[in-house]
Amino acid sequence: MYNILVGQSGGPTAVINSSLYGVIKEALDTPDRIDTVYGMINGIEGFLGGKVIDLTQYSKEQDLSLLKTTPASFLGSCRYKLPEDLEAEVYPAIFAKFQEMSIGAVFYIGGNDSMDTVSKLSRYAEKVDSDIRFMGVPKTIDNDLILTDHTPGYGSTAKHVATTVREIILDAGVYEHPVVTIVELMGRNAGWVTAASALARTDYDRNPMLIYLPEADFEPAAFIEDVKQALKEQSSVVVCVSEGISDKNGKFICEYGSDAGVDGFGHKMLTGCGKVLEQMVKKEIGCKCRSIEINLPQRCSAIIASLTDIEEAQSAGSFAVKKALEGCTGQMITFVRGEGEYTMTCGMEDVNKICNQEKKFPAEWITNHGTDVAPRFLEYVKPLIQGESKVPFADGVPQYLMPAYKK
Amino acid sequence: MYNILVGQSGGPTAVINSSLYGVIKEALDTPDRIDTVYGMINGIEGFLGGKVIDLTQYSKEQDLSLLKTTPASFLGSCRYKLPEDLEAEVYPAIFAKFQEMSIGAVFYIGGNDSMDTVSKLSRYAEKVDSDIRFMGVPKTIDNDLILTDHTPGYGSTAKHVATTVREIILDAGVYEHPVVTIVELMGRNAGWVTAASALARTDYDRNPMLIYLPEADFEPAAFIEDVKQALKEQSSVVVCVSEGISDKNGKFICEYGSDAGVDGFGHKMLTGCGKVLEQMVKKEIGCKCRSIEINLPQRCSAIIASLTDIEEAQSAGSFAVKKALEGCTGQMITFVRGEGEYTMTCGMEDVNKICNQEKKFPAEWITNHGTDVAPRFLEYVKPLIQGESKVPFADGVPQYLMPAYKK
Repeated sequence: MYNILVGQSGGPTAVINSSLYGVIKEALDTPDRIDTVYGMINGIEGFLGGKVIDLTQYSKEQDLSLLKTTPASFLGSCRYKLPEDLEAEVYPAIFAKFQEMSIGAVFYIGGNDSMDTVSKLSRYAEKVDSDIRFMGVPKTIDNDLILTDHTPGYGSTAKHVATTVREIILDAGVYEHPVVTIVELMGRNAGWVTAASALARTDYDRNPMLIYLPEADFEPAAFIEDVKQALKEQSSVVVCVSEGISDKNGKFICEYGSDAGVDGFGHKMLTGCGKVLEQMVKKEIGCKCRSIEINLPQRCSAIIASLTDIEEAQSAGSFAVKKALEGCTGQMITFVRGEGEYTMTCGMEDVNKICNQEKKFPAEWITNHGTDVAPRFLEYVKPLIQGESKVPFADGVPQYLMPAYKK
Repeated sequence: MYNILVGQSGGPTAVINSSLYGVIKEALDTPDRIDTVYGMINGIEGFLGGKVIDLTQYSKEQDLSLLKTTPASFLGSCRYKLPEDLEAEVYPAIFAKFQEMSIGAVFYIGGNDSMDTVSKLSRYAEKVDSDIRFMGVPKTIDNDLILTDHTPGYGSTAKHVATTVREIILDAGVYEHPVVTIVELMGRNAGWVTAASALARTDYDRNPMLIYLPEADFEPAAFIEDVKQALKEQSSVVVCVSEGISDKNGKFICEYGSDAGVDGFGHKMLTGCGKVLEQMVKKEIGCKCRSIEINLPQRCSAIIASLTDIEEAQSAGSFAVKKALEGCTGQMITFVRGEGEYTMTCGMEDVNKICNQEKKFPAEWITNHGTDVAPRFLEYVKPLIQGESKVPFADGVPQYLMPAYKK
């Protein structure tokens, strides 16, 4: 009998709270093994500052099943990197708090950087011979974690991108005159999100006619030729690009137009390759051109979330609790796809193998000299976007659960 | 017994096709008075080029009721301004085509500039003693047409803005550290769309804490003070601004950062006041700041369309046909709100009084020295966003009717 602790970290997704719900529900359904479920507010950083909520108590006051359709991080988030040096004084401080709260297992829901946190805490536990279990529950719209078929959050973003780009194609096609529409999508290093724009195609419109991912070198001169060629075929050309496209020298296209800052993890902050390409088209081709950055809605919109994604995200959280109770630690939950018709089961992999690695979009799925994606990708992604979320509305607007950090 | 002709013009909306459906359905339901329903492809400009579709025939091949949930202009659009001089040779050319096709009534679905087209054609008809009827069916997300309570298209955009801003507020609130999020919304001269962001507020989050409309002078120094004050109250501050905000000298804020072009109607092309404000906050306050332009999705997303708006848009199209059959011409359909609990009936007004006029957001509804909107506005807008659209999905993506211009 012990208490458990759950936290969320990194950028929010449409379904990160569904994984949280999976953890809470599984724990509440195991009252003989788990006493109280605590939530860290603002991840490990907030926890260090003493910010904790009793989720068992909270579940008596609020219908937490609303978490399944509430986007963004219910517990709040952080971008806090634990020190590489396991001798650092922060580790005993954290573990003292764990002990004080009788924590037997910690669940951390997040992406790459969050798995780094799970890795360090589990290694420290081993070092000090603690039997606290540390489990990572994956979350990232980027789909860039290795050793898993896909990540919770990606299916909903893929569905959002497919839907939004299909609507933009309709909007952009209404005029007779040539027009180029550049849609900039998320993805610093991996093209998974942008590739999903291929799902927007219909049998009557080949748009998006051009799709550029960060995994292929982007050559401005070739781009202009590609657009000119596309304009010969259709008067409205929609181009989808990842924010992180770069040229053969590794220079980001967004840097052609502006300076770039750096975030807490040393990542380059990218904005605006769409604007750079818009200017390029106006200058080199001279036709009407508009760029659109889909921005936050592609990760935080719950309205167009994938039901498959919501359910899988919940199962990942639930599976993590089951496995921790079996004594597993230092593991990240993975998704394993079955053969033939789509089935998905949860698995586990050593979190140390996963953190700080990136799964790129496969080179063999990039076609037409870097301007399109292969049908094989569509077979891969389609099962992930099936089913529609049922967000409850009241008085015309969606009803989302009040974040715990607002309590 | 005559044929009718219907066209769409100007920027698309989520429900412009619902009005088109209203026109077609009413006409098909009146087979004793109306023979064939023709559609102009790409508005009056395409019609001049001979682009016409037989919608009566098309309705036998396709389920046109899908028009009610299909965004953007099914018939295509144009931004073509008829000459002011009614002696210009284009007028007899157009009327010869009308006669050739036995057109008895023309329905033009659009905004301000489209009503200008209806005005000119009806005045020319009067001049040459033609008995062809010309009816305007309003359409604009901007809600800036006078003599009508509101316009079809506005309710869906208001609902989209309320929903998307609520989701952005959740996403932007997850970190502990101060962050300012600037959301730039459509509206060159009228603040109706941006004002709808107030619908995103909840009892647990005052965001968007600041709302700036084009109808109030925007003062950069006051803005910075407003943001500083807001940051004292909440660590996450969301600011919603209209693209067309300008300072007391009439200079657009977006012009602080970039040059502005001009479209075919002499309107200034605006982009980027959000980016300008983002830079201002970073420079003057120094906290994390991000700007988001909602862009096309706020007008072309059908997923979050308002059911009330869809139904009202259809009724406007239907009412226009009924009134043309009664002999009315040179009129635009209006919405008349009843007293007490929300009811809406269609009315009519002389299109000449409406075209080239703009209904601004009322000064008395702008509060807190130009940083908020009055509760009276919320009472006005809430009925317009009620009810959710039911977009059919197949294979995970929305199914929209193939545009007629693709046929």
